[in-house]
Amino acid sequence: MSIETLSWVGDVSDGFLRLIDQTLLPLELRTIDCRNVESVWEAIKQLRVRGAPAIGIAAAYGMVVGVQNVGAGLFEKRLYDVAQYLASSRPTAVNLFWAIDRMKHRFESVKELTSDGNTEVVSRILEELFLEARKIHEEDRTICRAIGNFGQSIIKNGDTFITHCNAGGLATADYGTALAVFFTAAELGKRIAVYADETRPLLQGARLTAWELMQRGISATLICDSMAAMVMRQGKINGVIVGADRIAANGDTANKIGTYGLAVSAHVHGIPFYIAAPVSTFDLMLSDGLRIPIEERGADEICCGFGVRTAPEGVAVYNPAFDVTPANFITGIITERGIISPVNKENIEKIIS
Amino acid sequence: MSIETLSWVGDVSDGFLRLIDQTLLPLELRTIDCRNVESVWEAIKQLRVRGAPAIGIAAAYGMVVGVQNVGAGLFEKRLYDVAQYLASSRPTAVNLFWAIDRMKHRFESVKELTSDGNTEVVSRILEELFLEARKIHEEDRTICRAIGNFGQSIIKNGDTFITHCNAGGLATADYGTALAVFFTAAELGKRIAVYADETRPLLQGARLTAWELMQRGISATLICDSMAAMVMRQGKINGVIVGADRIAANGDTANKIGTYGLAVSAHVHGIPFYIAAPVSTFDLMLSDGLRIPIEERGADEICCGFGVRTAPEGVAVYNPAFDVTPANFITGIITERGIISPVNKENIEKIIS
Repeated sequence: MSIETLSWVGDVSDGFLRLIDQTLLPLELRTIDCRNVESVWEAIKQLRVRGAPAIGIAAAYGMVVGVQNVGAGLFEKRLYDVAQYLASSRPTAVNLFWAIDRMKHRFESVKELTSDGNTEVVSRILEELFLEARKIHEEDRTICRAIGNFGQSIIKNGDTFITHCNAGGLATADYGTALAVFFTAAELGKRIAVYADETRPLLQGARLTAWELMQRGISATLICDSMAAMVMRQGKINGVIVGADRIAANGDTANKIGTYGLAVSAHVHGIPFYIAAPVSTFDLMLSDGLRIPIEERGADEICCGFGVRTAPEGVAVYNPAFDVTPANFITGIITERGIISPVNKENIEKIIS
Repeated sequence: MSIETLSWVGDVSDGFLRLIDQTLLPLELRTIDCRNVESVWEAIKQLRVRGAPAIGIAAAYGMVVGVQNVGAGLFEKRLYDVAQYLASSRPTAVNLFWAIDRMKHRFESVKELTSDGNTEVVSRILEELFLEARKIHEEDRTICRAIGNFGQSIIKNGDTFITHCNAGGLATADYGTALAVFFTAAELGKRIAVYADETRPLLQGARLTAWELMQRGISATLICDSMAAMVMRQGKINGVIVGADRIAANGDTANKIGTYGLAVSAHVHGIPFYIAAPVSTFDLMLSDGLRIPIEERGADEICCGFGVRTAPEGVAVYNPAFDVTPANFITGIITERGIISPVNKENIEKIIS
C-alpha cells in the first residue's frame, strides 16, 4: 500500500496540487485540491499537510500554483511574493525554506528568458518550475527508501521501538523517514513492534502513525506521551526513532514537541535514540539548536482539541509546536547518505557537504 | 474559597454522600448524591471522585451508606461484603484500603453490641461507623493544612513549579496535598507561578488543577505533559510537586501516569522533585514499588477521550493509570508530620511509626 500524500493533477498551466487532508484522518480519507497559493498556505498552516519533507514538496508545488496565469511583466515580482508568503506559513521546518530556495534558484537560472516578455517564454519558465517541484517530489521518494535501508543496521528481528508524532508516508512523498526504517524492516521480514506516542496536542501519533503502521501490518501499540518513560523502564524498548524539522550544524535537532522529553528518558534508560531525516533538514547556517525559531501555536489546540472545551475559560496556555533535542542525547542521525554517529559538527559536515 | 469535594447530607440513618462529579469540571460544577453503595463504587470507578485521600473518604462514607437499613442479623456479613465491594473499585490508591480498614476496625471494636440483635443497638453501631467516616474526613482537612505548612520550607517568593494531575482540594477533603503547598504559599503572600501538566488521558491537570489554581488567583499556565521537559530546560522551573496514590516502604511512589517521566526530566535538569501525601498513603507492607499493583484502564480513554474518535478502530492500546517513581528520583516527601528527605526506608520509618 502506498499513500499518495500529495500529487499534481492536470498539466502545468492549469493543474493543481491535491493533498490528503490529514486533519480528518483516521476517520476520513479525503483529499483537497489547492488551486491557488492561499489554499496551499492554509493547508500548511492548519497542518492539513505536515511533516517537514511533505511541507517542502507542498510549498514547491504551491509556487507553481502561485504563478500560473501571471504575465511576463509581473512574473518575477509575483514569484518572490509567493515565495515570501509561503515561507510565512510555518517557521520551524527548514525543508519549507529549502524547497522555496530551490524553486527560486531554478527560476534564477532561467529568468533571463522573461526579459523579452514573450508569453511562450513565460510558459517555458513555468514548465521549468514545475519540473523542479516534481524533482523535489521524486527525490523525496528515493531519499525515504535510502533512509529506510540505511536504518536497517540499527533494527533487528524482535526489536520494539518507540516513535513520536508522524514521520511516515504522510509526512513525506510516500514512505516516511522514521517510519521508513520500520516499513523496510517489515518488508525484509523482520518481526518488529512499535509503540506510537499519541503526540499531544494534535495527536499525529494516534491519528496518523498508528494508522500507517496498521495499514502495513506492523504491530502498533498506542500510548499517551507520558507513558513512554514507564514503558522504557519496563525494559520493553530497544530504541527510539523520530523525524526532524530542523537540524543545526552541531546536530541539535528541532522536532515535534515531546521529542526532547523522550530523548531525556531514553538517555536515562540507556536506550539508543535516533533521528531519521533527509539532508535537506540540516541548516548549517545555525551553529546550534538555541538559534532554531520555535513556532508557538494557539491555546485552542490544547483547550478544545477535540471540539469539546477541556480547560477553564481564560487559562494561560504555553503551546510550543517543537522542542530542541541537544546532540548529546542523539545516538545517530539516519540520512539518505548514511548514519551520522556520533553526532557532531565534523561528522555532519562529512556527510552533508 | 473552599471546595466541598464531598459532604454528608442528612442524618446517619437515611442521609447520603454528596460529591462533586469531577468528570464534568470545569464546564459544569454539579454534585451527585450517592444513596447506595453501588453509586459510591461507580463514582470511584469512573473518577467522579478521585485523588487518593478523597477516594478514602468516599469509601468510608460509602460503607455507612452500604449498611443503612440492615438488620442486626446480617449486619456484619453485609459490612464485610460492602468493604470488599468498595475495595474492588480501584486497585492502586492505598488510602481506599486504609479507610476501609479503619471502618472495619471501628466496627470490630463495637461489634459485640450486635449480638443481642436489638435494633437500637444496630443504630448505635451505624452511628459509630458514621463518626469514624466523619473523623477520616475531618482529619484529612487538618492533614492537608499541615502538608501545606511543612511544604513552605521548599517554596520561596518568585518560585515557579510544575505539578501533574490533580492533588488539590478536589483530591482531598478541601485543600489538597501538592496544591496545599501552593495555596499556603499564596496565603502567606508569596508570589508563585505553577505550570499544570494537562495529564492525559483524562486531563485532570487541564480540567481540575488549572481550575483550582485560577479560583485561588495563583498564576497558572497549562501545558501538555510532553512540554514539561522543554520548560525545565528553559530554566523556568524551581521544583516539581505532585501527589501520590501509594508509597512503598523504601519510598518508591505510585502516582498518576506521567509522574515518572516528569521525575526523570527533573533529575536530568537538577530540579528538586517532591511528593506531597498524607501518612495514610504509605504501604509499609510493600518493600518496594515493583510490588504496587498498577491499574490498567480501557482503550477508549485514549482513543475517544472526549466523545470524538481520535485513533484508528481496533488499534492496540496500553493505558496504565499510574506509574512508579523510584525513591532515588524523589528529593523529599512532604507529609503532615514533616518532610522525609532523603527518601529511604529509615527516614520513612522514623516519620511513619
